[in-house]
Amino acid sequence: MTKSLQAPHPLTLIPGPVEFTDEVLQAMATPSESHVSPQFISVFGDALALLRQLFFNTDKTAQPFAIAGGGTLGWDVVASNLIEPGEDALVLHTGYFADSFADCITAYGGKPTQLKAPIGQRPSLQAIEEELKKKSYKVVTITHVDTSTGVLSDIKSVAAIVRKVSPATLVVVDGVCSVGVEEIRFDEWDIDFVLTAPQKAIGVPAGLSIFIASGRALDVFKSRKSPVTSYYASLAKWLPIVQAYEAKKPAYFSTPPVQNIHALLASLKQILAVPLEDRFAAHIRTSDHVKSTIEAYGLSQVASQDGARAHGMTAVFLPDGVTLAELLPRISKRGIVLAGGLHKEIAAKYFRIGHMGVSVTDEDRGDFEKALAAIKESLVEVGYKI
Amino acid sequence: MTKSLQAPHPLTLIPGPVEFTDEVLQAMATPSESHVSPQFISVFGDALALLRQLFFNTDKTAQPFAIAGGGTLGWDVVASNLIEPGEDALVLHTGYFADSFADCITAYGGKPTQLKAPIGQRPSLQAIEEELKKKSYKVVTITHVDTSTGVLSDIKSVAAIVRKVSPATLVVVDGVCSVGVEEIRFDEWDIDFVLTAPQKAIGVPAGLSIFIASGRALDVFKSRKSPVTSYYASLAKWLPIVQAYEAKKPAYFSTPPVQNIHALLASLKQILAVPLEDRFAAHIRTSDHVKSTIEAYGLSQVASQDGARAHGMTAVFLPDGVTLAELLPRISKRGIVLAGGLHKEIAAKYFRIGHMGVSVTDEDRGDFEKALAAIKESLVEVGYKI
Repeated sequence: MTKSLQAPHPLTLIPGPVEFTDEVLQAMATPSESHVSPQFISVFGDALALLRQLFFNTDKTAQPFAIAGGGTLGWDVVASNLIEPGEDALVLHTGYFADSFADCITAYGGKPTQLKAPIGQRPSLQAIEEELKKKSYKVVTITHVDTSTGVLSDIKSVAAIVRKVSPATLVVVDGVCSVGVEEIRFDEWDIDFVLTAPQKAIGVPAGLSIFIASGRALDVFKSRKSPVTSYYASLAKWLPIVQAYEAKKPAYFSTPPVQNIHALLASLKQILAVPLEDRFAAHIRTSDHVKSTIEAYGLSQVASQDGARAHGMTAVFLPDGVTLAELLPRISKRGIVLAGGLHKEIAAKYFRIGHMGVSVTDEDRGDFEKALAAIKESLVEVGYKI
Repeated sequence: MTKSLQAPHPLTLIPGPVEFTDEVLQAMATPSESHVSPQFISVFGDALALLRQLFFNTDKTAQPFAIAGGGTLGWDVVASNLIEPGEDALVLHTGYFADSFADCITAYGGKPTQLKAPIGQRPSLQAIEEELKKKSYKVVTITHVDTSTGVLSDIKSVAAIVRKVSPATLVVVDGVCSVGVEEIRFDEWDIDFVLTAPQKAIGVPAGLSIFIASGRALDVFKSRKSPVTSYYASLAKWLPIVQAYEAKKPAYFSTPPVQNIHALLASLKQILAVPLEDRFAAHIRTSDHVKSTIEAYGLSQVASQDGARAHGMTAVFLPDGVTLAELLPRISKRGIVLAGGLHKEIAAKYFRIGHMGVSVTDEDRGDFEKALAAIKESLVEVGYKI
């Protein structure tokens, strides 16, 4: 590990934004470039090509996108392009983000049906299969990792069930807290759409909406009977743009965020310099270590099912009698920034640790030894016995 | 002028992205911060407060916003929040961007009527007044500076006419190539909505959609009969967020682009360190110099009406027999990046020079002496006689 060029700062170990590498931050400070200069076209084109690798995608009928916006914008893309007004969407619920995705689908005239599980769990494959047989769903949406609960969904199995029971239904994955940390084999698992954001396991500052659409999804979009119900989120506007940039040709719809795209390329190069399998394994190791340590402290996780827990974050219930207002500032004083709860029904009862990106892959940083020690010391300070 | 920290690079003198200051680029490289940390809340809150100053806004019923996205996203905000399906919008046409704004309004169910002028001109105030009397328009949209033609609109006079003839109609300004270079007195001129992007005269890398809504506009939005027809662009989602950040409190809808907001604050501090009147005057001086020099070269402008020309850019017709493919690469070889044409009907016949931001305000840089010399030398090289 070379000494970081970054000013000393508290360690941000939340489920995004994560810590960034020096190279990524330097790319954010790239001097001005025209968005249609050969230099930038090459950078954007390379970033799109590397995004394919991140998704194990080689099928060229699929198309990756990176546009200025929040991860949330990916929901608008799905709701306004892949679903026509009045059509049904099955929303698999594993926390806060499914409610929001359902809201978004409603805003564009789609009809979401939520299949819920108790907090901390995920709907069973059997329940999903039964629900799929009831109606003709245009899309099924799955939150791969629900950042509000840390529940991990089994997108491979869900996609297989959809293909078996309702083959024309599009499989849409919200991969905001999963892409870059959880395995996603886009082609092989026959997924139709994954949306994500850069500030999680992709290791790039927030400001991009990143997504990939399958050939099947693009065909569904192209054969819509009604017009697309958005403008900035319209695939009709963006598809020719990203196709042009990937072919290293200029195109214009809305000025791309030049510096953020430079940062995306810088991070993708770092991520793909080692096999993705090794990256996933490193995140599993860190996740197991964080989770077992937390359990050794006597604390329990919001995600309650074995095998259904995210590898990029851990949601931890507070001990009885300890509040977030007591605990988090003490951890913060020790230089570690963690996150409070997000799921409305239990928000005050738990905190969240993010373990993604360079904090995981550069073990010499010792970020989680520091974080776990800070948590332990702070718990002891508020009177909890470990 | 202290020596720049930026690596040597071609001067980007297009109508955005513009050249950035070192301080802005350093802010883009801010190490990771939680989007709800006290540090970032303070930065975002300060940026919103300074945005008010940029618009000469003191009326607190108005609200500025800065969200991740392209400038284009501001159109979606207008079309999906301020216009209900079936309602009429009057779109004043001064180039390419009015066509796109009209497209956007249509996507959300509004009914745009375009009032057009010949290329390089703007609709007369009389024509606007007559049109306003014909129908009950929910909004009038004006492109303050059409980046495709360099035509400047008289938004103060248009707003005054709207208030006289159709007082309930909302005055919406596309200020993408104007905010920070052209005078906009939001409160005094009684404007309802201005949308812009950071990579023009605000001097911040692309990646933000910045807008300000009047109390009247927010009331119209709040009293909608039909639901908002977007999700990511919904004012209902963002209003509580920016209100919270401006009050220095945490809030969450979609993770804000932390680094871009830091850069926005850095640039706004630099911009507002001198009176805005001085900034506008500096841009007028540079614009006059560029335009008179170009005319002295025997070239004419796309924006053909005196007093209706932008001060942040100049659109220049090529001499007969000279092509963009001959001219721009020669200028580029001299280290100056200019832009080609954008207005479909005449795109191959003109080029565009951007003169906004630090290239204008830091005269010691000599950016336009270099650019005008490069244009002259390149014209001579292709056989044009000056």
